[in-house]
Amino acid sequence: MNIFLISAPIIGILALLFAFYKAASIDKVDPGNDRMKEISKYIQDGSMAFLSRQYKSLAIFVAVLFVILTFVKGLGIKVAICFLLGALFSVAAGYVGMRVATKANVRTANAAMTGGMNKALDVAFSGGAVMGMCVVGLGLLGVGQLYNIFREPEIITGFGLGASSIALFARVGGGIYTKAADVGADLVGKVEAGIPEDDPRNPAVIADNVGDNVGDVAGMGADLFESYVGAIISAITLGLLAFGEEGAIFALALSGVGIIASIIGVFFVKGDGDPQKSLNRGTLVSSLITLVVGFFLSKYILNSYKPFIAIVAGLAVGLIIAKITEYYTSADHAPVKRIAKESETGASTNIIGGLSVGMMSTAGPIIFIAIGIMVAYFLSGGAENPAYGLYGISLAAVGMLSTAGMTIAVDAYGPIADNAGGIAEMCDLPEEVREITDKLDSVGNTTAAIGKGFAIGSAALTSLALFSSYTQTVGLSAIDLTKPVVIAGAFIGGMLPFLFSAMTMDAVGKAAFAMIEEVRRQFKEMPGIMEGTQTPDYGRCVDISTKSALQEMIIPGLLAVIVPVGIGLLLGAEALGGLLAGSLVTGVLMAIFMSNAGGAWDNAKKYIEDGHHGGKGSEAHKAAVTGDTVGDPFKDTSGPSLNILIKLMTIVSLVFAGVFGNGILF
Amino acid sequence: MNIFLISAPIIGILALLFAFYKAASIDKVDPGNDRMKEISKYIQDGSMAFLSRQYKSLAIFVAVLFVILTFVKGLGIKVAICFLLGALFSVAAGYVGMRVATKANVRTANAAMTGGMNKALDVAFSGGAVMGMCVVGLGLLGVGQLYNIFREPEIITGFGLGASSIALFARVGGGIYTKAADVGADLVGKVEAGIPEDDPRNPAVIADNVGDNVGDVAGMGADLFESYVGAIISAITLGLLAFGEEGAIFALALSGVGIIASIIGVFFVKGDGDPQKSLNRGTLVSSLITLVVGFFLSKYILNSYKPFIAIVAGLAVGLIIAKITEYYTSADHAPVKRIAKESETGASTNIIGGLSVGMMSTAGPIIFIAIGIMVAYFLSGGAENPAYGLYGISLAAVGMLSTAGMTIAVDAYGPIADNAGGIAEMCDLPEEVREITDKLDSVGNTTAAIGKGFAIGSAALTSLALFSSYTQTVGLSAIDLTKPVVIAGAFIGGMLPFLFSAMTMDAVGKAAFAMIEEVRRQFKEMPGIMEGTQTPDYGRCVDISTKSALQEMIIPGLLAVIVPVGIGLLLGAEALGGLLAGSLVTGVLMAIFMSNAGGAWDNAKKYIEDGHHGGKGSEAHKAAVTGDTVGDPFKDTSGPSLNILIKLMTIVSLVFAGVFGNGILF
Repeated sequence: MNIFLISAPIIGILALLFAFYKAASIDKVDPGNDRMKEISKYIQDGSMAFLSRQYKSLAIFVAVLFVILTFVKGLGIKVAICFLLGALFSVAAGYVGMRVATKANVRTANAAMTGGMNKALDVAFSGGAVMGMCVVGLGLLGVGQLYNIFREPEIITGFGLGASSIALFARVGGGIYTKAADVGADLVGKVEAGIPEDDPRNPAVIADNVGDNVGDVAGMGADLFESYVGAIISAITLGLLAFGEEGAIFALALSGVGIIASIIGVFFVKGDGDPQKSLNRGTLVSSLITLVVGFFLSKYILNSYKPFIAIVAGLAVGLIIAKITEYYTSADHAPVKRIAKESETGASTNIIGGLSVGMMSTAGPIIFIAIGIMVAYFLSGGAENPAYGLYGISLAAVGMLSTAGMTIAVDAYGPIADNAGGIAEMCDLPEEVREITDKLDSVGNTTAAIGKGFAIGSAALTSLALFSSYTQTVGLSAIDLTKPVVIAGAFIGGMLPFLFSAMTMDAVGKAAFAMIEEVRRQFKEMPGIMEGTQTPDYGRCVDISTKSALQEMIIPGLLAVIVPVGIGLLLGAEALGGLLAGSLVTGVLMAIFMSNAGGAWDNAKKYIEDGHHGGKGSEAHKAAVTGDTVGDPFKDTSGPSLNILIKLMTIVSLVFAGVFGNGILF
Repeated sequence: MNIFLISAPIIGILALLFAFYKAASIDKVDPGNDRMKEISKYIQDGSMAFLSRQYKSLAIFVAVLFVILTFVKGLGIKVAICFLLGALFSVAAGYVGMRVATKANVRTANAAMTGGMNKALDVAFSGGAVMGMCVVGLGLLGVGQLYNIFREPEIITGFGLGASSIALFARVGGGIYTKAADVGADLVGKVEAGIPEDDPRNPAVIADNVGDNVGDVAGMGADLFESYVGAIISAITLGLLAFGEEGAIFALALSGVGIIASIIGVFFVKGDGDPQKSLNRGTLVSSLITLVVGFFLSKYILNSYKPFIAIVAGLAVGLIIAKITEYYTSADHAPVKRIAKESETGASTNIIGGLSVGMMSTAGPIIFIAIGIMVAYFLSGGAENPAYGLYGISLAAVGMLSTAGMTIAVDAYGPIADNAGGIAEMCDLPEEVREITDKLDSVGNTTAAIGKGFAIGSAALTSLALFSSYTQTVGLSAIDLTKPVVIAGAFIGGMLPFLFSAMTMDAVGKAAFAMIEEVRRQFKEMPGIMEGTQTPDYGRCVDISTKSALQEMIIPGLLAVIVPVGIGLLLGAEALGGLLAGSLVTGVLMAIFMSNAGGAWDNAKKYIEDGHHGGKGSEAHKAAVTGDTVGDPFKDTSGPSLNILIKLMTIVSLVFAGVFGNGILF
């Protein structure tokens, strides 16, 4: 067997070993005093309780789909097993990542107290690295080994379906959880009771910190696991069509190189007083290694430098989107400053400003995605042979995600630092500790914005690659927009992200409302809480968030699976192609719009809190708080969920592609 | 020559004669006392000043485009002349309609005082009818006569381009004007100075009333003129391909029937104490006549009942969208009540609620548009011959718009009644007068919602029909979404409505800010205003609104013309097809989202003002005012402008279709 094919799962295992090594190094760090251990245990128990209950609910869904896949004509038990493995691997990545993140947070706080900034960065980043390495390790191990066993892309697509299903529920459920807890804690605690953020007297404070983990760590990890796996699978599918076996080999080899480069990159993140620089250095090193090795691999395996150009295009688009995201959401630039200024004339101008910035911010990323698609297609030879071009598009996605191990590490480090700050506050640690975690957290905000740009960009390219795989698998010679069923499909597909966003926003509202009622009840019935003589019932708040998040994630989740299958059966494969294209376009647009509007509102508020336009407590600040609250479900629930919606719908269509035909209506 | 071809322009002239008869009947009504005449003259002068300055700015644009059309290969002077006529006819419709509306408003107020509800309804509705008849009369006269002269759809498409260009600027300019004046008048007058709405001491009060006319009368009229003309032109284009000459004849004949039916319908709107019933009766009568005659005409001219089914589908979709619009935006139903309830917990929950209702409200209309497209296509024979099907889609649009004379009359009556109420307030007329105009105005709000639904539905179908004409004219056998240039086009096209909305929202913000500054200045420098001893400088406020509206409309307007031409030249006709489809889908979605969110916020505020959730002055009310202010540019500027954006881009592409080819990049 080819050396690269053998090495793919081995490199996956290597990444996992590295993750365990990193996890063990975190374990060795002292978690601090008893109070810190106690608080940290609350957060850890809450997070794990959410995950295990979420996984229990999902077990039913997975079981049903397993049976369906087994018995649907043309699919069968092999696809079903791949599906099951994809779901299990995604669960495993989420579980391990969370477990380590909830250990790293308290140790980061303690490291900040005992060892200062550098030590704290080291612990927090190690926690992120575990998550990152688990995601890419399990991803490459799964796809690589399943390809070695089955050698059929149709079968291993099941693995992608499993990853996607878990991802959707993790993102939606986690997104609802985190915002319900956040809004509940803020509205009753900060506004009504007048106690500071992260005050241990707030019954929802633990749920709030749990939310950071289940939303930003587990949700984001599952999202990128799905993109990573989906990109490789579509590159295998399209690579086989373009170059035969070598096309698949290159996709797996490149991913392996990305993992090794990411591991090397991790060693370059060393505390030297400037965490931002340190993280950038690690990212740069891993990207450069991947590019250089990818250049030679492209020539060696495929005997052409053209596929390499597609990889560069993918990486470039990712970086450009990240830069544009930063421009529209960071307080250093005009848009956020404008929103802050508009807050002076009240909440309505703040809201209009944020919505308009969010909408405006779609232009740049979309134009560069469009250019990236064309560059990846044409410069990898799409004009002579469309198969080369489509493979190029999937390679752009693989290229963008090849260093995902590093990207996720950098991204997941943020919520760990954020949690560490919360623990420092709750445990009354010295002011300097909070300063360090605040500094780390603020760097984390920038990296989170960049990570979000990557998540959206990779979702767009991965969906497009999966979409191309779909058209090839179904054997559609065209998806013709001059046909009314295709236009009708595009309309319905375009509408789904709007419907989905409305549902997830409503879900946050309902869950937050339940949380508000509970916090109010505790304050009323347990007067000792405010005096500090009674411990609030943290568990009940965690429980309420968990219950409502799990309840509210079901309908949007099922929608994403049922609608494409239903439309495919009713109107046929070509109309479904129109639907996928429609939802791809508006899904990416709405995701950018909502994420960036939310980010801009958030930072406009922080900018005012830093003393501009009257500072904290001013009328402008009140207006900005309104915008920030609107932005919360935008950027942390609805927006990111759309990334997964478009990927999941495409992969569902890809798996069931053989069933559709011309539709029963025609 | 065929009798129907001869009669088309004659029926157009008949409609114009009827309009003049109605206008003369309004002239005979007494405009009331000197104070009323004075105020009314301010409004009239302001409106006319805006129109004439707007037309002057547009003259340059029209002249440039005229020259371009004359000299571009394949187009020539005939197309250029048609373009010029289309622009002039649109201007004429807007001018006459506005002139009569600004006469009818004061006379409605006086009629309410002297003759009561029935008389007031009569005058207000007559004003609307003049607008309606001018639009359809000029439309059918223009298209019908130009077809008789040239007999070539490619040439008369120029007429549609003229209508579209004026429409875009009228909608965008009018929309910016009306909201800048509204926000300026409200924020400084109501909130800061504490004087009631429509108080003559408010320097922006005249500009505010002018805004109702230039936005809701002239802007809406130009919008529907464009849809009306565009639908007929695309039905002629596609009818010639499907049925030869008879296909064109049927489209013109059906439009003629619709006009006559509308004239008859006008006579059925008679004051009988219940204005809503009276308006419904008129609409019902004209729809029924059109349907019955259309049924026989379809068999007589085309020898088939199938095209008739498409017409029914179009009308049905229009009515269903209107009903869904009402459900989501009227205080009688759950969504608006929910937003009102959510206002209790503050502005942020009100905003999230409105955004979510707006997004949710896209589902129903989109599903029915999709069904309507397929029904119109397949039941008119698209399966046997695609040409029949595409003709069916254009007939659905013509069917929906055939009774536009009546629809516009009912729609334009609203702002006249609204203006009458303003005049009653400013002239201190007895309380009963205001009660009557309020009743008429509230009926007008419902009809406006229905009219908005029709405008969106007809824009979607008309654009789709124009899009089909485009594909036929360019001779594209397919617009294939599996090609990367088409997907890239769809991404860029889908993004344009977001960019366009951001620009128009920003424009309202800037213009409103200028207005706020001016009103504050006048209050400060002329202390006699508040004491009632000094007349505010109304003219300056009118001037500021005019200037900033005209300035801000230019870039978004040019964008709509330049982008499709640019993409067509760069990437070719097929990529441009993808762009049009992308902007059609997101344009319709965003238009529904923004219009309905705005309508829902507006009525949630009114619902609270009616005494629910604490009523006026409560915290819930304050939150609802925030939502309403956000909703203003949503529903009156950005949302409706999108209708025109998608039509204009399609018609621009259609006119320049011959120039594109495969694009210079490939």
